[in-house]
Amino acid sequence: MSGLAETITAIHPLDEDALAAARDRQRRLTKPIGSLGMLEDVAVQLAGLAGECPPPIPDPAAVAIFAGDHGVHAQGVTPWPQEVTAQMVANFLSGGAVVNAFARQAGAEVRVVDVGVAGAVPVEGAAGQAGALISRKVRPGTVDMTIGAAMTRDEAEAAIEAGIETAAELVDEGFRCLLTGDMGIANTTASAALIAAFTGREPSMITGRGTGIDDAMLARKINVVRRALHLHRPDPQDPVGTLAAVGGLEHAAIAGFILGAAAARVPVILDGVIAGSAALVAGALSSTALGACIAGHRSAEPGHAAALDHLGLSPLVDLQLRLGEGTGALLALPLVQSAARMLSEVATFDAAGVTQKA
Amino acid sequence: MSGLAETITAIHPLDEDALAAARDRQRRLTKPIGSLGMLEDVAVQLAGLAGECPPPIPDPAAVAIFAGDHGVHAQGVTPWPQEVTAQMVANFLSGGAVVNAFARQAGAEVRVVDVGVAGAVPVEGAAGQAGALISRKVRPGTVDMTIGAAMTRDEAEAAIEAGIETAAELVDEGFRCLLTGDMGIANTTASAALIAAFTGREPSMITGRGTGIDDAMLARKINVVRRALHLHRPDPQDPVGTLAAVGGLEHAAIAGFILGAAAARVPVILDGVIAGSAALVAGALSSTALGACIAGHRSAEPGHAAALDHLGLSPLVDLQLRLGEGTGALLALPLVQSAARMLSEVATFDAAGVTQKA
Repeated sequence: MSGLAETITAIHPLDEDALAAARDRQRRLTKPIGSLGMLEDVAVQLAGLAGECPPPIPDPAAVAIFAGDHGVHAQGVTPWPQEVTAQMVANFLSGGAVVNAFARQAGAEVRVVDVGVAGAVPVEGAAGQAGALISRKVRPGTVDMTIGAAMTRDEAEAAIEAGIETAAELVDEGFRCLLTGDMGIANTTASAALIAAFTGREPSMITGRGTGIDDAMLARKINVVRRALHLHRPDPQDPVGTLAAVGGLEHAAIAGFILGAAAARVPVILDGVIAGSAALVAGALSSTALGACIAGHRSAEPGHAAALDHLGLSPLVDLQLRLGEGTGALLALPLVQSAARMLSEVATFDAAGVTQKA
Repeated sequence: MSGLAETITAIHPLDEDALAAARDRQRRLTKPIGSLGMLEDVAVQLAGLAGECPPPIPDPAAVAIFAGDHGVHAQGVTPWPQEVTAQMVANFLSGGAVVNAFARQAGAEVRVVDVGVAGAVPVEGAAGQAGALISRKVRPGTVDMTIGAAMTRDEAEAAIEAGIETAAELVDEGFRCLLTGDMGIANTTASAALIAAFTGREPSMITGRGTGIDDAMLARKINVVRRALHLHRPDPQDPVGTLAAVGGLEHAAIAGFILGAAAARVPVILDGVIAGSAALVAGALSSTALGACIAGHRSAEPGHAAALDHLGLSPLVDLQLRLGEGTGALLALPLVQSAARMLSEVATFDAAGVTQKA
């Protein structure tokens, strides 16, 4: 299954019987009712997604880092040169980035998918690579959204389908938890534009400092988002059109990755603001797909909170992170796995011979 | 080393050179400066504690669950019968509690230390036990603090020393990260009294619903805390006296465990409100010891936030947990380990050939 339409058709709601069984089981475990807070909601969701209680532990896990470049970089929205996208892809492949360190800690696999890096990725002769580069390049970076549509509708769909196929391939390989990752210099500008388009919020309220920019550059970035929205007047009822107008290739791929995970009934842990804006696209295409989504963390980027609020998702980790790559999702992974273990491994009051409260 | 006075003498400040080296190294790693938020502070702290940069990964880890009963249970501050303390100890030993499930996920060892369970712990003939019970019983539960001192000063010191020795033994065995755990029906009442005594806050502001009590029982619990404070008028300048008056045996042991970890320069991840109130005792005995402490989470119990605020500690996980046992500390463990890995495993801009921002 790789087509967008077929994938959406294959997404079904959480299983009501499994949800009810999980809520009931949780009440009988040797712990005060409700004492695991948000993890109890995660555990119930995992059961509903798997269609069984207890649900399987979401393990092994893989993070897919979708990389792409952004024509809007030319507008001076970031102090980082565009070639850093390709350089960081090489860093991921040699295992030297934060996402690699966190993945080793969490026991997760790292896959890097080039859906739109502008330059050549310097991977030749890289001994001891942490993983192979999956080339699904749709185009070498987007068009500057202040001048034209970031990509054509066909290109947006192709990038979405690259994400769908990546999810399907990882599930075929046996991965039972998927994590979103991203790399793309200037991609928080595209995220801000998507979040403004889907939530209706004012660009100044949801555009942030990304990797760290000063007041003057932030003002320029907000203005760039406003100009792009004014030029395209994206209609959130047309998610693919909105994505094509102001999105990024990695945003499109992550939207597809979410849909692919949901179709396979495998949980997908969302990273930060890039994933949050991509989830707005995925949710507009299939609100049912959000049943597979777990918000790994809330980033320091203001648009992320707006996106999560719109999606109705509560983040698990809130440590003022703003790195991306999939790092926030990886930090949340053991929390999600712990929630599943609670349902499957903890003894009931009856079995353990523990007296319940009066 | 097991004496309280010698242990306090052995606690030294974080190493300034290692702190500076960690801050410098963090600036050169392939990530935007500050982009890992609170984890960057944790990484620097770990380097200062270890006295080297990068610091070792805090692994393997062990959670010590200190169990004790509370005479104040007789005042009707909880709907749970007192024998649940001993029953849950048995559950820990057979591996069926949430702390066991979370420890398996995190790859941590579980140790259960009886410092004051009132009844006999039913451990005989438990096949397939997850761990042996360490018996360091100081007395079979405390005295009702509304009638007399919860324990004598000698008993408080004996329980503190049980915690010190537990930490020292675990470090001797090779554990490089210690986590606090606790079990004791009614122990949030003792925590509330300790927090009121050390922070000066009004009991109604810091007394919570513990494992889940109704309004009438909460009002009674607040009144119990007020009566105990009125009876003893504990002086926070006399930490052991305050602990003896209104504390618990597990609180005393956790205070010692913190001091023992700090003396060994091994990080100690604090669990919830029981650990937070015990850390107030430890910090009053040696404010330098707080350099070894990492607040694993912030529990739903209102006194916990007050304690963390007083201690100047920022919690890593905030998921509305209120279970205890060490569960919140275990959820934070991979975050702490990830912070250390960042410093030791991530490539620098120079090494990875990544261009820095303009």
